[in-house]
Amino acid sequence: MNTQQIVLASRPKGTPTTDNFRIENVSLDAMKEGEVELEGLFYSVDPYMRGRMNDAKSYVPPFQIDQPIEGGVIAKVAATKSTSFKRGDIITGRLPWRHLIVANSNGLQKIDTAVAPASYYLGILGMTGLTAYFGLIDIGKPKAGETVVISGAAGAVGMVVGQIAKILGCRVIGIAGSDEKIKALKEDLGFEDGINYKSTKNIKEAIAACCPKGVDVYFDNVGGEISDGVIANINVHARIALCGQISLYNSAEIPVGPRLQPILLTRSVLMQGFIIGNYANLFSEGTAQLSQWVNEGKLKSTETIVHGFDKLPNALLGLFNGDNTGKMIVEA
Amino acid sequence: MNTQQIVLASRPKGTPTTDNFRIENVSLDAMKEGEVELEGLFYSVDPYMRGRMNDAKSYVPPFQIDQPIEGGVIAKVAATKSTSFKRGDIITGRLPWRHLIVANSNGLQKIDTAVAPASYYLGILGMTGLTAYFGLIDIGKPKAGETVVISGAAGAVGMVVGQIAKILGCRVIGIAGSDEKIKALKEDLGFEDGINYKSTKNIKEAIAACCPKGVDVYFDNVGGEISDGVIANINVHARIALCGQISLYNSAEIPVGPRLQPILLTRSVLMQGFIIGNYANLFSEGTAQLSQWVNEGKLKSTETIVHGFDKLPNALLGLFNGDNTGKMIVEA
Repeated sequence: MNTQQIVLASRPKGTPTTDNFRIENVSLDAMKEGEVELEGLFYSVDPYMRGRMNDAKSYVPPFQIDQPIEGGVIAKVAATKSTSFKRGDIITGRLPWRHLIVANSNGLQKIDTAVAPASYYLGILGMTGLTAYFGLIDIGKPKAGETVVISGAAGAVGMVVGQIAKILGCRVIGIAGSDEKIKALKEDLGFEDGINYKSTKNIKEAIAACCPKGVDVYFDNVGGEISDGVIANINVHARIALCGQISLYNSAEIPVGPRLQPILLTRSVLMQGFIIGNYANLFSEGTAQLSQWVNEGKLKSTETIVHGFDKLPNALLGLFNGDNTGKMIVEA
Repeated sequence: MNTQQIVLASRPKGTPTTDNFRIENVSLDAMKEGEVELEGLFYSVDPYMRGRMNDAKSYVPPFQIDQPIEGGVIAKVAATKSTSFKRGDIITGRLPWRHLIVANSNGLQKIDTAVAPASYYLGILGMTGLTAYFGLIDIGKPKAGETVVISGAAGAVGMVVGQIAKILGCRVIGIAGSDEKIKALKEDLGFEDGINYKSTKNIKEAIAACCPKGVDVYFDNVGGEISDGVIANINVHARIALCGQISLYNSAEIPVGPRLQPILLTRSVLMQGFIIGNYANLFSEGTAQLSQWVNEGKLKSTETIVHGFDKLPNALLGLFNGDNTGKMIVEA
């Protein structure tokens, strides 16, 4: 039996294009004992994948040329030689970008679609939600009444961060790339204010106007000049959680900017980078809290769903154009 | 009665010169109830004073034009209208740069010159030692066997940081501005290695050579390109304590450099700015530990003493040329 897969055809220099990917037909491996045959339903595209397209040492190994891209996938068990799963189970795991997948059952987790729609397990109840939760709670340490600023606020992680900050009683300001996104943050999610960075000349002044008491917590998904403008307004004893730097991922040169250390020093600011793997031993605690908030209606999921397995490269590249509001997912 | 004082004559643009100061004779105020008359013995010059020469909001208010510079001073009580001190007591306090000083006794502290020489209370047992102690322990959190890199390592704070890191069982690398300073760090204080940044073309490569296991703790007094080279070698889960940025203090423009957030993010690094005032409620604990180490001979004081009250401006400016090894002090 044949199936489609999407491989890394070449490594991008600067901004990737669809030419860096190739879709091809391959024959499906025969199932061995302990394996399952899966039909992919939903595929996650995430900004961190850009780093894996480079041949550089990082916290996850690079994708290999001519090998399938891999990432978070929700799939249905079509056949099984594993005692862990039965036919029809819906599972999530880190899997290759193939339409039909033969995989060892270790590392796969059954999900309960009675609790929440399957796609939520790639987003608000998956790595996205956990990233928002632990980055904000453990690094940002927001207190009620404090001002929280989020860059990439209409992205998958940003939208969850803002809602959690609201639950905790903070004043929340989001930075995003269109008036529609800002409207959604304010009207649908209750953000106090928002800044459309594409139509704002001076981010520093815009933040100052939105944050008359300064910025206590900055949850940064974006980096670059947007962050310069936020950090210029940072308060004494503020906390900066570095979650993403999407504005820099496609830079061919080492990006330069104003040195931040003098501000961090004189204002006693903490800046902490993190990846979600740091919190692996706390995932069940995080998922329980996120599920509770979802069930209570306090936490809403926003998804941008693209249809068609072959659209995976376009969906991934679209993240860097801000094509998504909330979690970007491809439905096969 | 007259005395000499040193005032801020003008605000520097970029690197200050002695023209920014003026020495002048003033008549001594009459003592009021609760006041003491002091004869200055030792005056502290410190890098943070450069910031106070600017008319900029910061964690300490700026010096005022035509008003005396102020800083840490050790003085002898020459006369008293306070019940707190008697004639002959040796005190320390934040006081104006005057040879004879009339001051309220509140905020002055008697020091015990039987425990340590008076000048130590401006250095290793004063703000300098406390800055080293809390910055390293609370932010750096060094563990035995880890690699600690210190910039400005032959400065007042750096020399104490390195010795504490050695006491805690770390491998210690110092960066300083002359071969003599590196020799002192290694031979007198037991640092494992040192880098003379003035004769080193590529700090990144030099750090890589000195730190084969990478950098776990970076105690930064200097900033700028030296820090870029250290941070390029920073380990996953490393801690960076931002104590000073002396290489940038005289910049007339906003300094620019490579953006650090991508490294801090992918390596889960903490960067924390601090000022010693953050730890005010822990000073007695810190002083007790430092005194114990000094008495046990585990912690040595290194001082550069300049003679003559009128040399205070030169001594302060000399900090930015690296004229000092250890704590720079002016003896009146």
